[in-house]
Amino acid sequence: MNMSMYQASVPMFIHTLKNLRAILEKGLAYAEARKFDPNILAGSRLFPDMLPFSRQIQIASDAAKGAAARLAGIDPPKFEDTETTLPELIARIDKTLDFLKSVQPAQIDGSEEREITIKTPRQEFKFTGAVFLRHWAIPNFFFHVTTAYNLLRHAGVEIGKADYLGRV
Amino acid sequence: MNMSMYQASVPMFIHTLKNLRAILEKGLAYAEARKFDPNILAGSRLFPDMLPFSRQIQIASDAAKGAAARLAGIDPPKFEDTETTLPELIARIDKTLDFLKSVQPAQIDGSEEREITIKTPRQEFKFTGAVFLRHWAIPNFFFHVTTAYNLLRHAGVEIGKADYLGRV
Repeated sequence: MNMSMYQASVPMFIHTLKNLRAILEKGLAYAEARKFDPNILAGSRLFPDMLPFSRQIQIASDAAKGAAARLAGIDPPKFEDTETTLPELIARIDKTLDFLKSVQPAQIDGSEEREITIKTPRQEFKFTGAVFLRHWAIPNFFFHVTTAYNLLRHAGVEIGKADYLGRV
Repeated sequence: MNMSMYQASVPMFIHTLKNLRAILEKGLAYAEARKFDPNILAGSRLFPDMLPFSRQIQIASDAAKGAAARLAGIDPPKFEDTETTLPELIARIDKTLDFLKSVQPAQIDGSEEREITIKTPRQEFKFTGAVFLRHWAIPNFFFHVTTAYNLLRHAGVEIGKADYLGRV
């Protein structure tokens, strides 16, 4: 009766990305109501040397699709990171959701001990599937989702934790 | 070979809280270097109607200890939420770590189907243990940890994602 690797990963990513999508819709509506260019939100940052909102969404997408693909032992779809507007970023979330929904439990279940290698510009990391999921993929995913949320919160969009947690 | 409920929860909370503790130490050092009162950081917010930094730490602590206790079917230790300084908040993290380390795998393993009830001011939620963990406890925990991180990042503390992810 243990939690399977699929249950511990893909449904959580799907649930949270749907919530993130709804948060972006609220950002778009906020910009429209106040008659400012919503793409200003896409470029927003909390500090000058931080990655902007658009990159937070792209990396959240990469974290989710990369985790699902690595655990399944398949190649993740490659997205070009060209999104600069909120509607494009919403479409990016939709493409990510489509991929996540295409991954079947049987592809991921049993991946606890699968060797996963992550290369960053500075370093190479080797994990088992279970350690990769809980110490890399999940924290990384929520980091970028929450940072995107915080950027819109800081901009005055009326969102709260219920938007982030969604319907449970 | 599935991931156990303990493995999917407590080690991730412990790992991330240790990283959060180190991030608070950097905040403290930053305030000391710039000779401003570090407690200004404890009261910081990204928007006026948002909970301040100190509450983000307290709620991250509650999310972790509450999840471990609920899954184990025991009462979490009650902390009084009186912390207003960074050293007090670091001590709060330490108390939380002490509790998490005291919870044994055998207390949590097998809690996938345990009925968990969460009461919020507005609503009551009933979950199985597995759904509680992945759609409530984990997202909630990372939300407050990342928001605390973002508050310090916004204040100019020199931290990056490596501080948040820690040694893996």
